[in-house]
Amino acid sequence: MTAADLLMQRTTDVLEANRLDVERAERADTSPTVVDRLRLDEHRVAGMAVGLRDVAALADPVGQVVEGWTRPNGLHIDKVRVPLGVVGIIYENRPNVTSDAAALCVKSGNAAFLRGSSAAIKSNIAIASILRSGFAAGGLPEDSLVLVEDTSRESAVEFMRLRGVIDCLIPRGGASLIAAILEHATVPYVIDGDGNCHVYVDASADLHMALSIVRNAKTSRPSVCNAAESLVLHADIAENFLAASEHVLEDVELVGDEAARRLLPSIGVAEEADWWREYLDLKMSVAVVSSLDDAIAHVNRYGSGHSEAIVTADLAAAQRFTREVDAAAVVVNASTRFVDGGEFGFGAEIGISTQKLHARGPMGLRELTTTKYVVTGTGQIRS
Amino acid sequence: MTAADLLMQRTTDVLEANRLDVERAERADTSPTVVDRLRLDEHRVAGMAVGLRDVAALADPVGQVVEGWTRPNGLHIDKVRVPLGVVGIIYENRPNVTSDAAALCVKSGNAAFLRGSSAAIKSNIAIASILRSGFAAGGLPEDSLVLVEDTSRESAVEFMRLRGVIDCLIPRGGASLIAAILEHATVPYVIDGDGNCHVYVDASADLHMALSIVRNAKTSRPSVCNAAESLVLHADIAENFLAASEHVLEDVELVGDEAARRLLPSIGVAEEADWWREYLDLKMSVAVVSSLDDAIAHVNRYGSGHSEAIVTADLAAAQRFTREVDAAAVVVNASTRFVDGGEFGFGAEIGISTQKLHARGPMGLRELTTTKYVVTGTGQIRS
Repeated sequence: MTAADLLMQRTTDVLEANRLDVERAERADTSPTVVDRLRLDEHRVAGMAVGLRDVAALADPVGQVVEGWTRPNGLHIDKVRVPLGVVGIIYENRPNVTSDAAALCVKSGNAAFLRGSSAAIKSNIAIASILRSGFAAGGLPEDSLVLVEDTSRESAVEFMRLRGVIDCLIPRGGASLIAAILEHATVPYVIDGDGNCHVYVDASADLHMALSIVRNAKTSRPSVCNAAESLVLHADIAENFLAASEHVLEDVELVGDEAARRLLPSIGVAEEADWWREYLDLKMSVAVVSSLDDAIAHVNRYGSGHSEAIVTADLAAAQRFTREVDAAAVVVNASTRFVDGGEFGFGAEIGISTQKLHARGPMGLRELTTTKYVVTGTGQIRS
Repeated sequence: MTAADLLMQRTTDVLEANRLDVERAERADTSPTVVDRLRLDEHRVAGMAVGLRDVAALADPVGQVVEGWTRPNGLHIDKVRVPLGVVGIIYENRPNVTSDAAALCVKSGNAAFLRGSSAAIKSNIAIASILRSGFAAGGLPEDSLVLVEDTSRESAVEFMRLRGVIDCLIPRGGASLIAAILEHATVPYVIDGDGNCHVYVDASADLHMALSIVRNAKTSRPSVCNAAESLVLHADIAENFLAASEHVLEDVELVGDEAARRLLPSIGVAEEADWWREYLDLKMSVAVVSSLDDAIAHVNRYGSGHSEAIVTADLAAAQRFTREVDAAAVVVNASTRFVDGGEFGFGAEIGISTQKLHARGPMGLRELTTTKYVVTGTGQIRS
């Protein structure tokens, strides 16, 4: 029986464990949003099982020859994709991450070493125990998934320092987790960072396209990292855009700089802190710039290196923006919401890297692997 | 005038600065080996200029479209190679690293932020100053090369914590430097680690090929990281190999386990510490194993994940060794000495990574870059 089948069969065990976590959270006056993230129901457990099956059906990245060539001395060199080894994931709440992360790690040939939050510990133990049985039934070692049951702060720091045990650590959490990783980690890590994403509407933009893209980038799912947080308007289009925004972005609270507020006095004042904020809410900052240069400078100054979009009809502007903006993804004439492993066609996603080493942008199975050079000769020695 | 021309023209300035470094080192009773690494002469400076020209002639990795595809919704996605930004290099002695590292960083579109050792500071300042003028003459910003002149221990720690300034730190030095990086660094780094490299001689190996490869791997340049440090012999070939080694490896001090010493009593005793040692000298440990499994287990236990070789005529043994040995490079029937950016055809090398993230194995220009996704649409929004 596969892990997905077993998870479906034992749904009540998972829900019973989850009920205990939810009750404890409610007794501790946890915010309803957080409790909602923690809470599982039959539908969510079924979703986890579907996720397991979807990942199982993806192509296996391991063994792929990334490139290969023969040297003049006859040595043949292949660069082959291999598992990282042990992938550690530290995550907060959301017990479904236990199954999603385990699936991706194991499918890419790694062992999954998971450390969830204390709030979800009973749910996580139940899910991990079922998956371990399922993996074992499928012929994998049970320890291809190991969950850390000690959720103390000390154990998190110890986890980050298991150099030689953890080959890659992927933290999925907020600023304090990232700060702890930077301070304490000795294991290699890939940071799935914040998204302070901008949409720049160029002077040449089609107004309707710009409004549609900004609306989608801001409102289709405000709580995710590829949602737009800031709007940058070229002065030549700002008046028309802002006039139309009263209808198109009527449910979004806008705060702007002086130029924006001169054009649309009803919007609030953007403080310096607003330019740095990832609202994750129906709120957006608005800056008016007088040139493409200023737009690029603004985006590079305040952006978090996640996803940055331009709406433009001007080829040269698109070329300069994509070349000069420093981010994991630059988007021309489309919503920032497309920067996502699923939308990119990766089949699944372990996160979106905002760092430049190893993986940058959406991370799928391939980003959970490394490569090895295989050099084959016939007795060659070096002179 | 190019940086290389300027370096040739101002050779005497470099040699004068270097003389002061060498004199100071000699007054401090520095070991002759270290003084030799520090010392420059006209020949070495000319070699640095040749290195600059060679790197300048390499293909520019920036702008390469690594892959590109179109999604069903019409979005086109390109993964484009871009510079990392600022590459920091911490290195010890050897003033030629100043010019080699600067060339590789700048050719790959990065700024080079260099911190050499205090022993070489005057040489490094002279070289960096000349290169800065040369780069500026070639139209680059002078600050595409910046050398840290404060060589205190505190400044090294500060350097490792310049998060947001240094995009990638590459330490080139010994164990204490690596330990300091693990403890203090908050910037992303790639470790150019030690090479405790093995050659495993399988039962099926051609004896002459095995002797030739082991001799080359051990003696052609013992001081480098891709030199072999340990010999693993299958029991079926150990007696013949060791008998012949008295002639073929006559200049190498061997220390072995009990089985090896029974076959060749003249060799010394290998202590546990020997299996972990990177001798970087004409010394080698010898283990006799009774199976391929034991050989792989030995290599995976003691190896540093650099380069590991098998000599064999048995296809299945070669396949298992290359699949199961966990190292940046596995080599079949050739010397470990080929694991090198130049020998791989990369044109130049900034180091050999023994880590699994970002780059593994020899690092050339390409490993000094990252990628950026460029997503181009026609107004797509996400449903």
